[in-house]
Amino acid sequence: MAEFKFAKRLDNVSGEAVKEILSYMSDPNIISFGGGSPAKEAYPTEFVREALLNAMDKVPLQMLSYGQTEGWKPLRELYLEQMVRAKGIKADLENVAIGTGGTQGFDLVTQTFINEGDVVLVESPTFLSAITTLNKIGAKLVAVETDAYGIRMDDLEEKIKTYHPKMLYVIPTFQNPTGWTLPNARRQKIAELASRYDVIVAEDDPYCALRYRGEEQAPIKSFDETGHVVLLDSFSKIVSPGIRVGGMVAEKSIMEKMMAVKQCCDTHSTLLVQEVCAEFLRRGMLKGHLEAIKPIYLERMDAMLNAIDKYFPKDISLTPPEGGLFVWVRLNGDVDTRQIVKRSVKEANVAFVPGCPFFVEPEKGKQCMRLNFSSQTPDRIEEGIKALGKILCE
Amino acid sequence: MAEFKFAKRLDNVSGEAVKEILSYMSDPNIISFGGGSPAKEAYPTEFVREALLNAMDKVPLQMLSYGQTEGWKPLRELYLEQMVRAKGIKADLENVAIGTGGTQGFDLVTQTFINEGDVVLVESPTFLSAITTLNKIGAKLVAVETDAYGIRMDDLEEKIKTYHPKMLYVIPTFQNPTGWTLPNARRQKIAELASRYDVIVAEDDPYCALRYRGEEQAPIKSFDETGHVVLLDSFSKIVSPGIRVGGMVAEKSIMEKMMAVKQCCDTHSTLLVQEVCAEFLRRGMLKGHLEAIKPIYLERMDAMLNAIDKYFPKDISLTPPEGGLFVWVRLNGDVDTRQIVKRSVKEANVAFVPGCPFFVEPEKGKQCMRLNFSSQTPDRIEEGIKALGKILCE
Repeated sequence: MAEFKFAKRLDNVSGEAVKEILSYMSDPNIISFGGGSPAKEAYPTEFVREALLNAMDKVPLQMLSYGQTEGWKPLRELYLEQMVRAKGIKADLENVAIGTGGTQGFDLVTQTFINEGDVVLVESPTFLSAITTLNKIGAKLVAVETDAYGIRMDDLEEKIKTYHPKMLYVIPTFQNPTGWTLPNARRQKIAELASRYDVIVAEDDPYCALRYRGEEQAPIKSFDETGHVVLLDSFSKIVSPGIRVGGMVAEKSIMEKMMAVKQCCDTHSTLLVQEVCAEFLRRGMLKGHLEAIKPIYLERMDAMLNAIDKYFPKDISLTPPEGGLFVWVRLNGDVDTRQIVKRSVKEANVAFVPGCPFFVEPEKGKQCMRLNFSSQTPDRIEEGIKALGKILCE
Repeated sequence: MAEFKFAKRLDNVSGEAVKEILSYMSDPNIISFGGGSPAKEAYPTEFVREALLNAMDKVPLQMLSYGQTEGWKPLRELYLEQMVRAKGIKADLENVAIGTGGTQGFDLVTQTFINEGDVVLVESPTFLSAITTLNKIGAKLVAVETDAYGIRMDDLEEKIKTYHPKMLYVIPTFQNPTGWTLPNARRQKIAELASRYDVIVAEDDPYCALRYRGEEQAPIKSFDETGHVVLLDSFSKIVSPGIRVGGMVAEKSIMEKMMAVKQCCDTHSTLLVQEVCAEFLRRGMLKGHLEAIKPIYLERMDAMLNAIDKYFPKDISLTPPEGGLFVWVRLNGDVDTRQIVKRSVKEANVAFVPGCPFFVEPEKGKQCMRLNFSSQTPDRIEEGIKALGKILCE
């Protein structure tokens, strides 16, 4: 076979990091704290079955025919009402669209705005797949310093002044990988800085519905007066990830351009699963379902925090999250979690994600590990953290 | 609101042409020969309902959990056997993947290979959405001359030598918009030229299953000895378009890069509809279903060809297609079909797609019109063509 020349932008784009995470997850002998899957026990399986039947009984032709790029209108209407305006965001139907998961929303924003070489600011650390997506479009990434609540406003403004970024990518609530949550004051400040310096904010907020403790914070988008903020969210953590449904909220001209891009990407997203989500909202299941599943997650989060307290070295840094799926641990001393994970998989059948791929400068993550608590039962969490702690304490 | 600066590549990217087509299609008073939808009468609605139930009964957790980027394995296996190897293509599981319709396949190929400014050769005319997708990635488009079978081999080789293109985009069977089909000899020649001059061929073949007359031709991919051809196909014309399922076949290193790109784009495609297509193949429905639906299309195609013969001016050019969804008409004299369609919608309630957006140099399509016959009944086709013919004959 020939050797092929791929687009230059893709030199740093490979699916390996995520592939490795997925491979641990599919091995039933491994207790995986990798991944970011919801609890399987939280999937509304019986409801999805019913909703699919319902869709094929009531609107079969619409389900099977070509649909509109911006999404299934009944879902857009319900999403607007229950998940956008309900959060204090001023928006109309023209401002909302449905895509193939939250992942697609961010990809569309990057394709819509980024020229090769444009600077994008990201949190340090940030979601590893977002780094890959930004590399794919040829962005130049600059990391903004963080404290235990997320990005620091002084460093954000300084980096904006220095680098004249096109975009800021931020996960404000129960951040991936850290679990940190930006307080309202910083959210408002981000919206103000975005307007003042003409920076697009890609606000990626897939975890916000999974709050187990503390006060709800308003989306950055709700403070946006000039249209600079694009909000991306997802039904993956609410209904389930395999259906691939996510929402987007943007100013009209931005949404039109994003939809022109989406038309090229996949014409539109699968309609059947959009109707499943519409039916979920139509039946008023959002609040009740979340209240039913949050105790499952809270129990698992506490099981993990307690086990870490019991079995991990005492000199670690950790900020207990108020929701989401992840606990982020920084170890002390001269360690490299990329080496530790190899040992822990081999010797203890426990996997996690090492911190490095979450950083623009990977070496900065050597001491860090992301631990997902949502996809394992409390017993397995205790067992896995105990085994991992034993290795860490050696 | 602010005025936003989008990526420069997108200056020529808008969804307007397709949006206009869709708007005519949704108006029940208009006989629309726009669009490219299959006949609704051909959708296996009852089967889809059953297959969804089956999926939720047998593999509910797999349907709702995160899946693999390359697609639902049972579908990949069945697709490989029944739709890839069955066409004489040498391929293994690592060479096939499932995406969100054929549209995504082509978008992934462009993102994988094209640097801004790279030359891509296209047929003249070619699929209008492919032009937009190539603009989106910043390609420089060069049109290859065609005759009544598709691209001419002499012009193809000359343009390859002159422009050193990165890629050739070609729809070999029942081409969109022309309905033309490339004969085997040219397909083989394309594969040879691609290898000799190191050009990637994006072979977009969504219509090939809809052959009503004449001899089947082998995919270009089946003549590919060096891995330069990427085959894209689709379940849209076989099962239905609203489910958004398409297949891709590529050499291993190409497929890996495409999947790294897809991981950024949408993580993976919706699983439920992939299982619906798997069940369709598992039950051996492919052949029987096609044999059941082809007579519907043939009747409509003949209704259109007969009506054109009866009602259109005698000096038009038209090559009767052997399958697919479209008839392409070139009028004679100093006309502009962009003006004609405005009149025909207003005065006769008949819509079609003017030829211009299918050409790299739009003015070349002034005399042309694309007429879709699949989505209207024979009666409506006769009625619409008669009304359109009246305007054309004035």
